[in-house]
Amino acid sequence: MINIDLRSDTVTRPTPEMQNYMFQAPVGDDVFEEDPTVNELEAKTAALFGMEAGLFCPSGTMTNQIAIKAQTEPLTEIICDYTAHIYQYEGGGIAFNSAASVYLLHGERGKITPEMVQGAIRPDNIHYPVTKMVSLENTSNKGGGAFYTLPEIAAISAVCKENKLALHLDGARVFNALLAADESPQPYSQYFTSISVCLSKGLGAPVGSVLVGSKDLIRKSRRIRKALGGGMRQAGFLAAAGIYALDHHVNRLAQDHARARLLRDTLQHCPYVEHVLPVETNIVIFKLKPSASTQTFLAKLKEQGILALDFGPHQIRFVTHLDFTEAMTERTCQVLREIKF
Amino acid sequence: MINIDLRSDTVTRPTPEMQNYMFQAPVGDDVFEEDPTVNELEAKTAALFGMEAGLFCPSGTMTNQIAIKAQTEPLTEIICDYTAHIYQYEGGGIAFNSAASVYLLHGERGKITPEMVQGAIRPDNIHYPVTKMVSLENTSNKGGGAFYTLPEIAAISAVCKENKLALHLDGARVFNALLAADESPQPYSQYFTSISVCLSKGLGAPVGSVLVGSKDLIRKSRRIRKALGGGMRQAGFLAAAGIYALDHHVNRLAQDHARARLLRDTLQHCPYVEHVLPVETNIVIFKLKPSASTQTFLAKLKEQGILALDFGPHQIRFVTHLDFTEAMTERTCQVLREIKF
Amino acid sequence: MINIDLRSDTVTRPTPEMQNYMFQAPVGDDVFEEDPTVNELEAKTAALFGMEAGLFCPSGTMTNQIAIKAQTEPLTEIICDYTAHIYQYEGGGIAFNSAASVYLLHGERGKITPEMVQGAIRPDNIHYPVTKMVSLENTSNKGGGAFYTLPEIAAISAVCKENKLALHLDGARVFNALLAADESPQPYSQYFTSISVCLSKGLGAPVGSVLVGSKDLIRKSRRIRKALGGGMRQAGFLAAAGIYALDHHVNRLAQDHARARLLRDTLQHCPYVEHVLPVETNIVIFKLKPSASTQTFLAKLKEQGILALDFGPHQIRFVTHLDFTEAMTERTCQVLREIKF
Amino acid sequence: MINIDLRSDTVTRPTPEMQNYMFQAPVGDDVFEEDPTVNELEAKTAALFGMEAGLFCPSGTMTNQIAIKAQTEPLTEIICDYTAHIYQYEGGGIAFNSAASVYLLHGERGKITPEMVQGAIRPDNIHYPVTKMVSLENTSNKGGGAFYTLPEIAAISAVCKENKLALHLDGARVFNALLAADESPQPYSQYFTSISVCLSKGLGAPVGSVLVGSKDLIRKSRRIRKALGGGMRQAGFLAAAGIYALDHHVNRLAQDHARARLLRDTLQHCPYVEHVLPVETNIVIFKLKPSASTQTFLAKLKEQGILALDFGPHQIRFVTHLDFTEAMTERTCQVLREIKF
Repeated sequence: MINIDLRSDTVTRPTPEMQNYMFQAPVGDDVFEEDPTVNELEAKTAALFGMEAGLFCPSGTMTNQIAIKAQTEPLTEIICDYTAHIYQYEGGGIAFNSAASVYLLHGERGKITPEMVQGAIRPDNIHYPVTKMVSLENTSNKGGGAFYTLPEIAAISAVCKENKLALHLDGARVFNALLAADESPQPYSQYFTSISVCLSKGLGAPVGSVLVGSKDLIRKSRRIRKALGGGMRQAGFLAAAGIYALDHHVNRLAQDHARARLLRDTLQHCPYVEHVLPVETNIVIFKLKPSASTQTFLAKLKEQGILALDFGPHQIRFVTHLDFTEAMTERTCQVLREIKF
Repeated sequence: MINIDLRSDTVTRPTPEMQNYMFQAPVGDDVFEEDPTVNELEAKTAALFGMEAGLFCPSGTMTNQIAIKAQTEPLTEIICDYTAHIYQYEGGGIAFNSAASVYLLHGERGKITPEMVQGAIRPDNIHYPVTKMVSLENTSNKGGGAFYTLPEIAAISAVCKENKLALHLDGARVFNALLAADESPQPYSQYFTSISVCLSKGLGAPVGSVLVGSKDLIRKSRRIRKALGGGMRQAGFLAAAGIYALDHHVNRLAQDHARARLLRDTLQHCPYVEHVLPVETNIVIFKLKPSASTQTFLAKLKEQGILALDFGPHQIRFVTHLDFTEAMTERTCQVLREIKF
Repeated sequence: MINIDLRSDTVTRPTPEMQNYMFQAPVGDDVFEEDPTVNELEAKTAALFGMEAGLFCPSGTMTNQIAIKAQTEPLTEIICDYTAHIYQYEGGGIAFNSAASVYLLHGERGKITPEMVQGAIRPDNIHYPVTKMVSLENTSNKGGGAFYTLPEIAAISAVCKENKLALHLDGARVFNALLAADESPQPYSQYFTSISVCLSKGLGAPVGSVLVGSKDLIRKSRRIRKALGGGMRQAGFLAAAGIYALDHHVNRLAQDHARARLLRDTLQHCPYVEHVLPVETNIVIFKLKPSASTQTFLAKLKEQGILALDFGPHQIRFVTHLDFTEAMTERTCQVLREIKF
Repeated sequence: MINIDLRSDTVTRPTPEMQNYMFQAPVGDDVFEEDPTVNELEAKTAALFGMEAGLFCPSGTMTNQIAIKAQTEPLTEIICDYTAHIYQYEGGGIAFNSAASVYLLHGERGKITPEMVQGAIRPDNIHYPVTKMVSLENTSNKGGGAFYTLPEIAAISAVCKENKLALHLDGARVFNALLAADESPQPYSQYFTSISVCLSKGLGAPVGSVLVGSKDLIRKSRRIRKALGGGMRQAGFLAAAGIYALDHHVNRLAQDHARARLLRDTLQHCPYVEHVLPVETNIVIFKLKPSASTQTFLAKLKEQGILALDFGPHQIRFVTHLDFTEAMTERTCQVLREIKF
């Protein structure tokens, strides 16, 4: 039976070519900053985004949490959408790692506006925490893969600069966003003070994320990574996969987007589907009709060898990725058409 | 010129009778638990609310923050309305003192429902913090003095008990709530695991708040108070004011409520007022028409010897209290009627 | 029976004159910075120590903890003697409130040297926290009231300045130190970045401590005090006691020192005493012979109406203070001479 | 030129056999607990130490920090030797991640005794943090590789059990300890509540450490790992190296110990060496004579292609390991004999 995993783009396994590249990478002790492959990946990712320096970490959660810790203090506050991964899915890490407060906005499909940010900045009053940072997520996971364009980012950045706020990007799926917006990563450094670039989602690397920013920020971040226990020794094997992914797996994300649209087109004609959120990148979120139970639906899919994610009240999430092939797309569409309630 | 302060019910000064009582109180070293007046106040407040024990603290912010710290841990979450004092006006203390996350609800006039609480409890999944506690504020400050009734509290408590969640009451103005609901404090102990009882607002004591709960909770809280620096030595002078207030200033809150209604009645006929929020206790929040500037309005009041608080976009807050007399009420109404824009 | 309390100088009750002064103090809402008596005390204490500003807090633990929080960050370290009150007796507050590490020195009678501080400063290496602050305690409680002289302080301060470290003084008994050293408080501001000035020990005020430092530090500290719950409303009654104490109770500490020496002289001839630590101020620490049980000794004293403190293995602490009169001194010496084992 | 790295046993690179094994490992998404190789490593390590469950983490710092966080709370205290890695070399992580205090003992060569632990347990008094945990390091890095025997561990464990304290083992070099003591890991579970088993030091795996303990502890730890950002996706490649190391690299540590002794024997006859600490495992710490500068000595070694670590005042540390061959040992001894000052 074909086994199709649409739960997340984190489930991909390295291709034989990537694995070969990993296997041949020179490695060293990265705690001494002597792993040549880690150093190469950090420099390469920083350069790609126009930043001075980079730091390789075991996960996107860690790069996000380090960016927050490095740019806030206890008794300060971070502004983000209430759907943000940093708030919703990092185990309460903002309060735990940074003792910082959150000001939660209610944007559209996970996207916030300059006006919303402006309205969330605290006045100078000892009753409030001090606003220090804004965080965007591009694309927005909970927002069904909605993306920010450069002009939207620039407008939010202007508010941040005027108010001396750091602006972080949770770039879990930043390459999907850039592709959808037909933009290059280079200008991002004009707007963001830190970017978390994930390698283990659409890019298909097995492990890791790179935090990029100024030299000062990365120096500070290296210290935080040490205290969190994120300093790895011969991490070059993992970093090599990241280098390979940046070289070979960025443009192919277009396939994932196309396949997501195919899934959407099919779902829109399924009688048990209430509605499908707009599909702009590789995420497809849809609502089942009240009569169709989420658990039954997921069970029916699983019987056919297809895994998907329960995504809140009566919602299902599909994510397309490197290991979701053309044949699997066809098979999934067929199964979706045939499911009965 | 009459000086009228409507900014808050925290501005009251002790009456001569209260002050006399304060300075005849026997005192001792409360860090050794040997101040007889502090001990009396703690026992009295606990008994009033049907609880086992009490702890006198320098502020309501401290009793709230201790209750949160004592009933959460890092990596857990507390549910409250987004207008809650514990989240909005305690300097980011939840994250700072407890490293706990917040799940913010959007209730009506600061009041949340059992259904909202139920929907906010996190599933058992390592991506989320663990829900540990719910906090209510009665009356709700930002909600314009709206109050919970005992059946409303009981329904929320039922959800908490079913899910093993602590239920805290920020009782900054709990006696205003009890008076408005025509209820006694005794049954509260069936529903709340901790209550912060403020003495320095409507009750007119100069300083302090008492945290009441089980013996175990208070033992733990005493330790936290020490580390926060809230352990005072001969605090009996302050505690005496609290005892006097509980004995003499509870029923008179009815006057404050009546005067708040008089202010409301006047405001409703002022041409520069867009609308007045319902007045249920001693807080009057009203919105100015777009043409009337908040700053100009406050300045015009100040010229007449009246102080009030800017309370968000185009909103003003009045709070009535022990030092706001009948004569002052008349004078304020007259000024309000005469202001021109 | 005479009741004599030698457990601590915190046990004093206000004199009638002090209480009278408290009673007549004008008060206001200090959270709005409108309590005239609090403002006067803050300015007076700051001026006394040559500092720009002051902040009144409910305890010396709070002024210490705020000073540490304001001058460190998580992932930094504070250097102090292992006997320091901030480390030993504030409930683990350094880690709790500031998430800062401690580097513990082993000085002589609680006093550390410039060389010890120099040796404790961490090199720039991500394995270590960043050294940020040094804290002295003057007099040293655990050190039996030993005091630093100005030249000793100046030498430590020089190391701090060279290494950009804050230098805090836990001045729980700073007036005892100044008296013993025959020095004035004025020059302290050249050396310390923050000073915690306690009012409720030898000075005899019922409650409180003033933190003094630069305007910037005090602004930051006010914010921290709010989040800890240390912001009080009409605190002027307590502040008045502090003003009275600074005006009338500083020079009389000489009596406490003289009485401590009398206790020492008596103890040195008691057959059950192994040895008495040097007595330089108002603290007398002595070791009982192995044959004399601490608990029995304390019980025998208590039978005679005298309270003292168990101070570690086979050690007893006496502290002299405002409420320990000449007659009580004589009576205590007599009891000490008559105790049998 | 031969390049010899004696700075640490963390510098090893995988052998060809280990690397082969790594890249044939089946992998999955470990955040979903679906990486078969990670699951195998966790179960295998737990079984080896007689524990119920395991958790694979990117570093030994993370396993240590998670164990501390899982078994303490803010306002509690952990007892350890002042040389302990958890206190000295984890960036201030105890205060940062756990807000816990430390009680630092001064053992012999990093080893503490049951009596020392007993004396460090705090009495029940709100001035102190609550003692919660003891942590041992076996072997002791700063102690020059000194090891605990099982009877020594059992005696400390008895004190912990009597006082309801958790007992953690920082097993950075636990296999070196077991080999030197000629003991098996199985009985450890009777004494320790958590063990951090490092794979990337003497065992020669590139990355990672496994925390082992009860099922409950590991469940809690998984949550903490998530918030720290230590949850990796297809981590099976790294875990495979750990499995290989446990199967093939444990017994060969005897070679490292023998080579360390050869280095010691040579050093003892070098005229510039003041003294060499006892060598019991794979660490050689020696003190240079006052006339010999540490920096010059390290530079002279480096000229000959040998790297070593500055280890405090006038001290040098050598660590032998998998990549330090017999030929390298001979070459190092020769160089040491020929160095002139």
